[in-house]
Amino acid sequence: MPTPSIPSTHTDLLDAPVATLGTIAPDGRPQLSAVWFLNDDGVVKISLNVARQKTKNLTANSAANLFILDTANPARYLELRGDATLEPDNDYAFADRVGAKYGGVNLRDMDGPDGKRVVVTITPVRVNAVDLSR
Amino acid sequence: MPTPSIPSTHTDLLDAPVATLGTIAPDGRPQLSAVWFLNDDGVVKISLNVARQKTKNLTANSAANLFILDTANPARYLELRGDATLEPDNDYAFADRVGAKYGGVNLRDMDGPDGKRVVVTITPVRVNAVDLSR
Repeated sequence: MPTPSIPSTHTDLLDAPVATLGTIAPDGRPQLSAVWFLNDDGVVKISLNVARQKTKNLTANSAANLFILDTANPARYLELRGDATLEPDNDYAFADRVGAKYGGVNLRDMDGPDGKRVVVTITPVRVNAVDLSR
Repeated sequence: MPTPSIPSTHTDLLDAPVATLGTIAPDGRPQLSAVWFLNDDGVVKISLNVARQKTKNLTANSAANLFILDTANPARYLELRGDATLEPDNDYAFADRVGAKYGGVNLRDMDGPDGKRVVVTITPVRVNAVDLSR
């Protein structure tokens, strides 16, 4: 099945500062967290520390949702429902690209010396681009 | 088990204009939507049209998450992970209370003449009050 595309009315939200990541917690309930993310040529990618529960959730169950609210107009949002693939980012190459988006933050400083990160790529099977204000 | 309480640092978010509701879609993936909600004396309640997929999701699986982002400071958020209970709101008594919060909106106008609504109450089993900016 081809990956559904994001309508041009909502592609600006791929450059928003924050998104909400939905995963499935061990008890089966949805777990939601605010995350930094990167728009990699239209593909949404997140840098996660492997020690975090949301990363463990995705390792156990790839079901994921990236939800981006237009904070200036909360009637407008983009929902990317799909699956996450995780790849090692041992040298922080991707984490550094995310840090650059956020004013040059060094994500190593958040993780401590034993930190390990993965690149999480969200591949949507369903895209909902909503604007209730129109 | 007693319902976990919301720390006073984050109770103001119960009066925010918008929240993100997480449910479990029929395919097992998290489904996220922006929702209006009401702070009913510290208890979070939502008015949903029964015809919407998120309402069907909650009828099939009560697992729910209400996530409130501080849109003025997206490093701060409140996550209420728990279960939803649904009660009929055939006379729109609760929907009218929600409409009053949103400047006197009549939710019947959104639903059409055959609309049916339920009151969705979120009972958290876990509360995450996050402020990464502190």
